[in-house]
Parts: sequence; structure tokens; C-alpha cells
Amino acid sequence: MPWFKNLIKISKTITNQSSSYKSITPLASPLLAQFLQFTKQYSTNDHVVGLEATKSDQKPRIVVLGSGWAGCRLMKDIDTNIYDVVCVSPRNHMVFTPLLASTCVGTLEFRSVAEPIGRIQPAVSTQPASYFFLANCNAIDFDNHMIQCQTVTEGVETLEPWKFNVSYDKLVIASGAHALTFGIKGVNEHATFLREVHHAQEIRRKLLLNLMLSDVPGVSEEEKRRLLHCVVVGGGPTGVEFSGELSDFILKDVHQRYAHVKDYIHVTLIEANEILSSFDDRLRVYATNQLTKSGVRLVRGLVQHVQPDKIILSDGTNVPYGLLVWSTGVGPSPFVNSLDIPKAKGRIGIDEWLRVPSVQDVYSIGDCSGFLESTGRQVLPALAQVAERQGKYLASLLNKVGKEGGGHANCAQNINLGDPFVYKHLGSMATIGRYKALVDLRESKVSSFFFTSIFLFFLLRWCLDRALTYFNHTPSYLLLISPTSINIE
Amino acid sequence: MPWFKNLIKISKTITNQSSSYKSITPLASPLLAQFLQFTKQYSTNDHVVGLEATKSDQKPRIVVLGSGWAGCRLMKDIDTNIYDVVCVSPRNHMVFTPLLASTCVGTLEFRSVAEPIGRIQPAVSTQPASYFFLANCNAIDFDNHMIQCQTVTEGVETLEPWKFNVSYDKLVIASGAHALTFGIKGVNEHATFLREVHHAQEIRRKLLLNLMLSDVPGVSEEEKRRLLHCVVVGGGPTGVEFSGELSDFILKDVHQRYAHVKDYIHVTLIEANEILSSFDDRLRVYATNQLTKSGVRLVRGLVQHVQPDKIILSDGTNVPYGLLVWSTGVGPSPFVNSLDIPKAKGRIGIDEWLRVPSVQDVYSIGDCSGFLESTGRQVLPALAQVAERQGKYLASLLNKVGKEGGGHANCAQNINLGDPFVYKHLGSMATIGRYKALVDLRESKVSSFFFTSIFLFFLLRWCLDRALTYFNHTPSYLLLISPTSINIE
Repeated sequence: MPWFKNLIKISKTITNQSSSYKSITPLASPLLAQFLQFTKQYSTNDHVVGLEATKSDQKPRIVVLGSGWAGCRLMKDIDTNIYDVVCVSPRNHMVFTPLLASTCVGTLEFRSVAEPIGRIQPAVSTQPASYFFLANCNAIDFDNHMIQCQTVTEGVETLEPWKFNVSYDKLVIASGAHALTFGIKGVNEHATFLREVHHAQEIRRKLLLNLMLSDVPGVSEEEKRRLLHCVVVGGGPTGVEFSGELSDFILKDVHQRYAHVKDYIHVTLIEANEILSSFDDRLRVYATNQLTKSGVRLVRGLVQHVQPDKIILSDGTNVPYGLLVWSTGVGPSPFVNSLDIPKAKGRIGIDEWLRVPSVQDVYSIGDCSGFLESTGRQVLPALAQVAERQGKYLASLLNKVGKEGGGHANCAQNINLGDPFVYKHLGSMATIGRYKALVDLRESKVSSFFFTSIFLFFLLRWCLDRALTYFNHTPSYLLLISPTSINIE
Repeated sequence: MPWFKNLIKISKTITNQSSSYKSITPLASPLLAQFLQFTKQYSTNDHVVGLEATKSDQKPRIVVLGSGWAGCRLMKDIDTNIYDVVCVSPRNHMVFTPLLASTCVGTLEFRSVAEPIGRIQPAVSTQPASYFFLANCNAIDFDNHMIQCQTVTEGVETLEPWKFNVSYDKLVIASGAHALTFGIKGVNEHATFLREVHHAQEIRRKLLLNLMLSDVPGVSEEEKRRLLHCVVVGGGPTGVEFSGELSDFILKDVHQRYAHVKDYIHVTLIEANEILSSFDDRLRVYATNQLTKSGVRLVRGLVQHVQPDKIILSDGTNVPYGLLVWSTGVGPSPFVNSLDIPKAKGRIGIDEWLRVPSVQDVYSIGDCSGFLESTGRQVLPALAQVAERQGKYLASLLNKVGKEGGGHANCAQNINLGDPFVYKHLGSMATIGRYKALVDLRESKVSSFFFTSIFLFFLLRWCLDRALTYFNHTPSYLLLISPTSINIE
């Protein structure tokens, strides 16, 4: 069988390479592990699966890990006349994260907040030596300028995930951060995060399912209240935005379309400290009033344990729930933790030019990186705003390096990199439903162009979604599309 | 725990009722079965969970099983001043099936081909005694005018499915048909059908995943060809339409956006007899030529066995595939098979007024029903056209009966039902990609108004989809949104 042959070929490669990797994650498949064990004894250095190092007469290769704000902005601006671009990510699209909360209840459509990588940088699908690989990077061999990846084959029953190598001239680590759970039991199992489009889809599906099931005979009053209790943990911008959107949905759509159960649905927002703690005091008070007015119950509490049908707070209170959305910030991912390089607050340590100074030709941007103490700078907050600006800066830096002949591996030592990266905070924004938003410009040093752009973008997409919904007569947020929608039998 | 209490309460009910049911399907949950066993010994007739029979001073209740063309058209036209409507279906929306093939490759958006029940008949979500229940009907107690249902709780981890009863004054069975597999091994496990929106989503997801994985280093030439071989089994309108859409997608999008693998992707349509056998000869020849011209390989063959990565034909030929779509027509569902009433070719036998003559106040429409031999009429084909017309006819018949005071159970014996149902075939239509369609009007006895309407509807939705896509810069058919799109780790 062809896939069998492939495994043999690939596993040979891995055994030849593995000794020089700084970290190797455990293999997903026991079958593959078995082959590895088997081939270890017979491996020869006949063939490396993957992209080999570029030659001096070829374009240098930039490898980008991740497809978030940082990586995508970088890829968008990279000059593909100078570089070939290879993106390695388990997600083939970028998510416009600040608008994700609006998709859960149908204010926006899912596709309005996602953009395929092939459209952000068409070279990856059209240029002969540029690629997008649907895979995770497992390890980096900094000495040999090479990464080891493993494909994401979930959903393809005939393929086991396989490993391959990609040599780089420049490596940009923009692999993002992971949702924090503070080690609280049950969060990963029972709560839904709000970081990817499939999270938003899951939230929409659960909400609709609970609305419908609570209307079926045989559900007690108590159970109905539990099913329709939506709990949001975390009072940051995402949690507040989602609570606002949800209360809008209840006031408008549930009252109109789920009239039988409209008095049972409630939203509770649990936060250990203040909501929107990074915002100005007056804005916080305003947000609190607005949320309370639209029916969101604000609870100050510390979650101790999450069970399938209830949360237990540290003071012993039980909070039964039907939908639990977890949004308590982000922290370093296991991949970043596994890298044996200097860190800054757990993130990949970088210098003023966004380089990883301990190794050659490696850069890191976005939520996964932070300024080293030696730079005398603060670690920047994990915001789309920071990531986007870093991506833009680094693309221009790498284009400059490439133009001056430093594109290939180990060739940029003597090139002047120009001005270091400087971050100017343009302010913060959070919507709180009912077409209201908070804009905090305290630290802003530039004009409001950034916010005007975001607002116009938001407005245009919203109008288009509404227009289509109107003509279509199909608000898709009312559709429950899942494998359970089978025919009667 | 509340759900525990519920189970006890419900299971009591079931044991009290079960003796009079003509068929009881096996319980999905062993836990529930255990409770049933336990409560059998202690059951008393204290409480029935569900909707009890209506009283003479209340509106009579129409119960509709299913949410397809027949059931939805009926519900749309039912006079809710006369009747309360209760719809029982595992799907909360109607699917515009003839356009489903177009959604697989993004010609149309998913939401353009689905309509929530609550918008087709708003009474189910707003009137106090009308409902939509997300459930399957398991059994019918014709003598006592009552159905037994079981909720669909897949996706809700805190709820076991539970049973409930609904009494009816009029029952309309419109639960549709099941995809035929002719008992061929491996079809249910490895092939995807094309009857629901989630099937179309699954096809789109598999296609994109295969396109992306075949571009990753480590895939052999042979494996690449297999991954990108799309096989369609069944040369009826659905199979032909899907093949046409797919070849369009390859010629346009794959060549543009997946340039690295464009020479590896192929479409094969396997049919045991002629394609589009119900169409006129000249149209068949035209369709064959068009499909061949756009690169679809037509193979006459009989599938004997489906394995995860290849099909084995009856002549021993192996056909490796990456995507397999199965579309060989429909037959009676297990639910219809379980009903102990006279059948017509396996379907529920009906008379000229669409009644099930052996029992009182029961009607059946759409793919699940067929004229009894005693009517001297042919069993009508399983077409949206038939179902829609039957739904319309029956709604008007039931409205008439209700107006004349025959709405309640066992009250319609002496009411003149008016003219029997007469089916006029308006012709058949099938698209074959590249904006081409076949229209067979041989048996048509009316004007082309029907087709003009369908065409305009199709055109309008297509234009809107394109417009949104253009403004949005996001063709969603390029997004791979699935739980595999996790962050790099």
C-alpha cells in the first residue's frame, strides 16, 4: 500500500535527523512509533523527505510558523521577487479575532471573520517553490537551519500523520499563544474557548441545541434554567464582548424566535477582579452599567472546578450552566515551552529587531515572543495590534536584508538592519453589544485613523451580512447544522 | 441531579404506554434501558410526559413528522387560526436539495440552501401551543392518536436522550426516505452521501484537506493521485450535478489556487446503467458529451465493495479514491419499515386524498408514501416536485376539514374532502456545471412558470453570494474550518 511505503521512507528520514533536534514531541501514532523503532536499525542516509536547503543561485526561503495576525501581515508584505515563502500552520486561514464574538450569535457570518492564507499571499499556492503546509512544527534544529513538522491529517481516515523537514534561510516564529486555564480541573473538557472559528461554531451550535431541547416536554423547570444559563468566565475584552453579543441575541432573537423559553435564558459573567481591567476607570463603570442594563449578571468569583453541568467557585457556590465560555487570557504554548532558547516571561526572547539573538536567522513576532530583559523594554501585551505591527516591521526588515544580498542563511551578519522596532499603542477597543463600543485612547499617540478603519471595516461587513440575510430570507444563525441532523428513522 | 429525576419520570411514562405501541425501537442508551428495567416494577400511571390530547374547546393539533419539502410546504400553508402545529424532526431546517451539490465547491453558500422551520411557520416558535421538537418519532399508537418520540441530544454531554409522547388530532407522516446502499459493504463507513447540509460540508472539508495534504513533502506520486481522485457513484441528477460542479471547481479554482497539484486531480462518475436514465435520449447524449468535455471520466460498472482507500468493481477493477460521494437513489427508512400498516413498494400506502386508509386521521406525503394498488395509480417518483405539491394539496385539504369542524380526532368521517390529489409532472431539470442545465419537458402539461421561478431563485442567490464574496474578499469554500485547526503546539 502506498501510504505504508511512505511511512517507511519518512521514518527513515526522521531517525537520521532526530539526533540533532533540540526537542522531539512524542509520536501521535503508535503504528508510526513501531515503524520508527523498526527502521532505526536499518536506516541509511539515502533520502531526506522535505525541502532541502536552498542553493546560492536560488531564491532564499522564508519559513513562517503560524497563520495569525503576525505571520499573515508578514507574509502579505514579503517581497516574493526576493524570497520564496513557506507557511507551516495547522490552520489554512487567518481569523479576524476581535470580531469572533459577533459570529457566535450571527451578528456576523463566520466567513466574514476569516481569510484564506492563499489570498493573503497568493505565492504560496501559485509560485513553484512557495508553499502552505497544513502541519505543526514539532522541533527546530537551529544549528542546521531546519524545522521538523508533522502533518495534520485528522479527518482523513486513510493517512497516518507523517513527519517532514523544511530547511530555512530565515525562520519567523509566529505560532501564537495558548488559552490559559490556570490548571483548573474540567476547563479543557467542558468549557469552550473563543479563539478559532470552530470555537464560535461550537458555541452557536450548543446555544441553539440548548434552546431547542429546553422546549421539549420532559425537561424540569430547574433543568431548563440550567440549560439556558450561559456563563462566561473572564472579564477581558473577549468575555465582555461575547456577553454583550449574547444579551443582544436574547433581547432580540430569543424573544422573537424562541418565545416559549425566553424567560429562562440568562447570561452571567464571572471575573476574579475588575472587568476590562486594562481600560480607563470611567469606561469600566460605563461598561458595567451597560452590561447590567442589558441583563448580564456580573459575578466576582474565582472558579475552582468545572463539572459537566456546573461550576464550583472558591467560596463553595455552585453555578449550574448549559453553555460555558472560557476567556481568561493567553500564555505560552507547549511548543514555545519546548524550545531551548532564552525566554522573556515564558515567551521567546527577542531583541529590538525582533531577532532571537542566541541563534542565526531566527525571528519571532506576535503573542509567542517578548523583549528580553537585556533590551530594557517591557514585554508587549498579547494584542492583535502588536502582532500586526511586528509583522509589518519584520517584513520590511527582511525585504531590506534580502535586497542587500543577505537573504540566504548565515549571510546577514554585516547588514545594517536600520531602526529597531518601536511599538506605539493606538488605544484599545471593546464592543459591548447594542451597537455600543468602548474606545480607550489614553496611551494613543497618533490620530484615530486606526479605529476609523476598523469601524468602517466592521460596518461594511455587517451591512453586507444583513443585506444577504434579508434577501436570502435565511439567517444562518438559526440553522443547526450538524451530523445529528439525520433523517428520521 | 435534575436530569436523573427526569429520566425516572420519563421512564415511568414509557412503561405505562409501551404496551399499546405497534413498534418500539431499541433504546439508544444502556443507562436509560437500565432505568426502564428498574422502574417497570414500580411504575404507576401518575403522569404522562408530553402533549396530552386536545379538548374540544381547544384548537385541534396537527403533528407533522419531518422537515423536508413535503412537511415544510404543508406547515407553510396550514391555517394556524384553525390548528396548532407541532413539528417533530431531527433537523431544525429545510434543505433546498436540488442546490446542495453547488454548495460543496462554494458555487453557493450553505445558508443559501437551508431555511429554518421557525421562519417557514413562525407559529412553532411564537404560538403558545405550537412547537418544533428536535427529536425522532420512534413509534405511532394509531388507536390512541399518539406518537412516541425520542430527543436528539448528540452534542449535549449533560443530557441523555429522553422519550416523550405527543397526542395528535391529525398526523402527517412526511419523514422522507433513506439513501440506498444496496447492502454494499463499506458504503456507510467510507462514502459520503449528498442529502443534508452537513454532508456537503463534509465533502468540502475532505476535498480541501486532500488538496492541501497532497502538497506536503512525503506524499508519493501514486498517493497524490489517489488523494485527488474524486469518485461519484450513481449517475442520477444528483451525481451528475455534483460531477459537473466538481469539474468546474477544478478547471477554475484548483488551477488558480492549488497550482502545485492541479495535474493530479480527476473526477470519475461510476454508473451501472445509463446516466440520467429518466431523461430524454438526446439530453443524455448532450450531458455525456458535456461532462466528458469538462474532464469527467464516465465509467460503467457495478460497485462490489468499498474499502477505505479504494473501490472494488464487480469485474475486479480496483479504483483508488480520496473522496467518494454516493448517490444511488433512495428507499424506505427503517422507521417506515417498522410501521405495521399496508405498504406500496415499501412506502406507506395512501389513497387518492393522501390518507393512510387503514387508520383514522393519518396522512402521508413525500418520499415516504406511495399510492396503494387499490387506487389504480402509480407510486410517484421520490422528487421534491411531488413532495412539494402533495404538501400544498394536503394543507388545503386539512384547512377545509378544519373549517368544517372536522379538525379534532375522529371528527372528519362525514366531511366531503373535495377533489383527490392529481400529480402533473412539470418536467425534470439537472445542472451539469459551467452554467449549463438540462430541462426535460416531455411530460410537462403546463407552462414553464415552474422552471422560470427556480431559475430566477437560483440566479438571485448566486448573484448575492458572489457579491458578498467579492466585497468580503473571502470565498468561504477556501476555508478549512474544523477542530483540527488548532494552534501550533
